[in-house]
Amino acid sequence: MPREIERKFLVASEAWRDHVSHRVELRDGVIALRDGCKVRVRFYGDAQATLSVKGPRAGMSRDEFEYAIPCEDALAMLSKHCDGPPLRKTRHHLVHAGQNWTIDEYHGALAGVLIAEIELASEDAAFARPAWLGSEVTYDQGYRQSALMRRHRAALADSA
Amino acid sequence: MPREIERKFLVASEAWRDHVSHRVELRDGVIALRDGCKVRVRFYGDAQATLSVKGPRAGMSRDEFEYAIPCEDALAMLSKHCDGPPLRKTRHHLVHAGQNWTIDEYHGALAGVLIAEIELASEDAAFARPAWLGSEVTYDQGYRQSALMRRHRAALADSA
Repeated sequence: MPREIERKFLVASEAWRDHVSHRVELRDGVIALRDGCKVRVRFYGDAQATLSVKGPRAGMSRDEFEYAIPCEDALAMLSKHCDGPPLRKTRHHLVHAGQNWTIDEYHGALAGVLIAEIELASEDAAFARPAWLGSEVTYDQGYRQSALMRRHRAALADSA
Repeated sequence: MPREIERKFLVASEAWRDHVSHRVELRDGVIALRDGCKVRVRFYGDAQATLSVKGPRAGMSRDEFEYAIPCEDALAMLSKHCDGPPLRKTRHHLVHAGQNWTIDEYHGALAGVLIAEIELASEDAAFARPAWLGSEVTYDQGYRQSALMRRHRAALADSA
């Protein structure tokens, strides 16, 4: 079964920006949540979209199933069947010491939020800490995407 | 956008059984519900599975997106990420006056429930009523799949 094991961090400086190899604009919408399960629709840029089912998080792991779907379906889901407006972020990719990192830079109501992630093959896998890496937030509920979605909606409601 | 327009009926006799052209065993699980949106995983027999997103129902119509997914993913979702045990039913297919009908025969805790459905191209499309057709339940909340799921879970809980 596909399983996602990842660790999340804040960033301590902007030095990572010099090492970005490529980036993609993401738009996420949550179709439904239940008992920690999440169903998400995501645009990668304008030409690729996916539907994901994620199981409840257990520590740094969770089951994850992701399927490519037609963009017109994803657009309809994002505009009509998601809980609130899409959350937008730029995903920056970079390699440090032979390992892949992503840094998500949130936009709109969440502008300023930056989260670095590394995906690991096992929960105890070693990795090299880049100098720009900040505190770990893997277990911090406030930095889960669902919590960020709530902050995003609350900020939009405040500004309405 | 894919849109499902269907009318649902009870059956008034068993005469439909003589006209069944083929049937398939279905196993359904609901991953999540929100504001009338539903995300469902379904097995068609043992070798085909789908993930569906359905929008809120408006009368006899709703948006519907359905994607084939690997059976091993569907099995993991059914066993680990659904709200309750799978709902099992036999879907019987038959043609009456050139139009396709399905009759869902529920099993387990819902044994005895039979629902006939016809899918239409538009809300006002004409169709021929077979002699075995009973009362229409298109607008009856008690015969929605979500309500049947609740009955199914409640019956299982009572028998536990």
